[in-house]
Amino acid sequence: MDSIKLLSQQTSFEGRYIRYQHRSTVNKCDMTFSVFVPPQALQSDEELALTPIVYFLSGLTCTDENFMQKSGAHRIASDLGLILVAPDTSPRGEGVPDDPEGAYDFGLGAGFYVNATQAPWADHYQMYDYIVDELPALLSSELGMRGAAAITGHSMGGHGALTIGLRHPDRYQSISAFSPIANPSKCPWGEKAFSNYLGEDQSTWLTHDTCVLLGQVEAHKPILVDQGTDDQFLKEQLGTPALEHALSENSKGEWVLNMRASYDHSYYFIASFIEEHLRFHAKHLD
Amino acid sequence: MDSIKLLSQQTSFEGRYIRYQHRSTVNKCDMTFSVFVPPQALQSDEELALTPIVYFLSGLTCTDENFMQKSGAHRIASDLGLILVAPDTSPRGEGVPDDPEGAYDFGLGAGFYVNATQAPWADHYQMYDYIVDELPALLSSELGMRGAAAITGHSMGGHGALTIGLRHPDRYQSISAFSPIANPSKCPWGEKAFSNYLGEDQSTWLTHDTCVLLGQVEAHKPILVDQGTDDQFLKEQLGTPALEHALSENSKGEWVLNMRASYDHSYYFIASFIEEHLRFHAKHLD
Repeated sequence: MDSIKLLSQQTSFEGRYIRYQHRSTVNKCDMTFSVFVPPQALQSDEELALTPIVYFLSGLTCTDENFMQKSGAHRIASDLGLILVAPDTSPRGEGVPDDPEGAYDFGLGAGFYVNATQAPWADHYQMYDYIVDELPALLSSELGMRGAAAITGHSMGGHGALTIGLRHPDRYQSISAFSPIANPSKCPWGEKAFSNYLGEDQSTWLTHDTCVLLGQVEAHKPILVDQGTDDQFLKEQLGTPALEHALSENSKGEWVLNMRASYDHSYYFIASFIEEHLRFHAKHLD
Repeated sequence: MDSIKLLSQQTSFEGRYIRYQHRSTVNKCDMTFSVFVPPQALQSDEELALTPIVYFLSGLTCTDENFMQKSGAHRIASDLGLILVAPDTSPRGEGVPDDPEGAYDFGLGAGFYVNATQAPWADHYQMYDYIVDELPALLSSELGMRGAAAITGHSMGGHGALTIGLRHPDRYQSISAFSPIANPSKCPWGEKAFSNYLGEDQSTWLTHDTCVLLGQVEAHKPILVDQGTDDQFLKEQLGTPALEHALSENSKGEWVLNMRASYDHSYYFIASFIEEHLRFHAKHLD
């Protein structure tokens, strides 16, 4: 395992929480990610290989650690027998460019799960290929994790989960999101990120916009979305009404969108509903 | 409510997570604390007044927030109908002295739940009186929380919970601790804190040492302790063998000490067993 380095491991709910670092070919930097392995999967290589995997894509400013520390997901994954994988939210390290003003919503911690095509971002910001191809291949080849996969995420990561899940129904058996940036081509966060990463030709943006993709795909796997009504970003950034419209009008598969009274954008919201999401994924991964 | 200021509130598991700030008379500074109010207690002032309260005392370097963010306790408190209160771990702010070298194990974030008698600490570091008297009185008078109480904590806060619980069987119906500093008069963390806060006369130290108190009290409320076997502080700081000996030889009430194979000192350990602790407290508070 020369190509992957174990950074730390801790016992949690009878499973193991492990952080790894590896050299990313697509992002041309060292990337760190977190994995929770449930107790069942620790029993043998065969069990590990078969255990289903749920990817959690995090939101702006997060690293691989936030979800593992704050969501309470280990308890449920331990119970259901799910591997959890939380990647970082951007390339990092020496030579990786950041927002010139160090803003929280672009650059480091804000890869938006796309492959940048524009200088100076294109050299490192290839988070789409990282999540869809490089990381799963690494989990399989280096860690022996080869189970069926589902994908979920929060905010920017909810955008990532929905767009990636919609584009790859062959790879992810179910899709979910908390407070997703659902219509990024029409909100300030998305406009800033897409114009920089993808350029001014907005036709490229649309291939990473959940509301647009829902009208284009021929079919999709089951979708579950939760959104708090007191979310401080609901009005300006998330595009929830557009998502509800796109699901109602264009959806080609099962979907549920829950509006949750009085919840905000924080990890307390995620923690409150992560059990429902993981049970949803476990059902479809079974 | 002039004497208490609401800093923030968020919905979590259908309850409310609220942070307050107030002027502490005993610590002579502004103190911040966190409260989780379960949904049952939000229904009326009468319900709130009767809802049992579990105090969680945190460990070195923590604030009022760590437990609320990382333990997963909201879910269980919501289910069981418990108010959770997490105080800060020391006085803070302008004029509050800190360790001269800024060490993590003394001064700010390290009040050790004693009343300091030595200069320059005695002016502000009165965490014992803060936890036992001032904070409960404030919860009652300003927030209308008057239910029966239990006490728990982690590491330095496990020490706080055990010593305070043993000394006040009238105020706390049950006592628990995760990875407590159980014999502080005989470990480096405790020796440093007690010699500075309490002075060189070790007889004063013994009134804040769980292993000593267990041999002195005439009776105590039920005690639950969990300790990980891979805890990085187990050998040098925690005094677990002395605790086990004191419980076995001198205990005057129910007790359980669980050694948990392969768990460390982190919040993943707390998260893994907080449900058992809160159910233990709920049973005795009922």
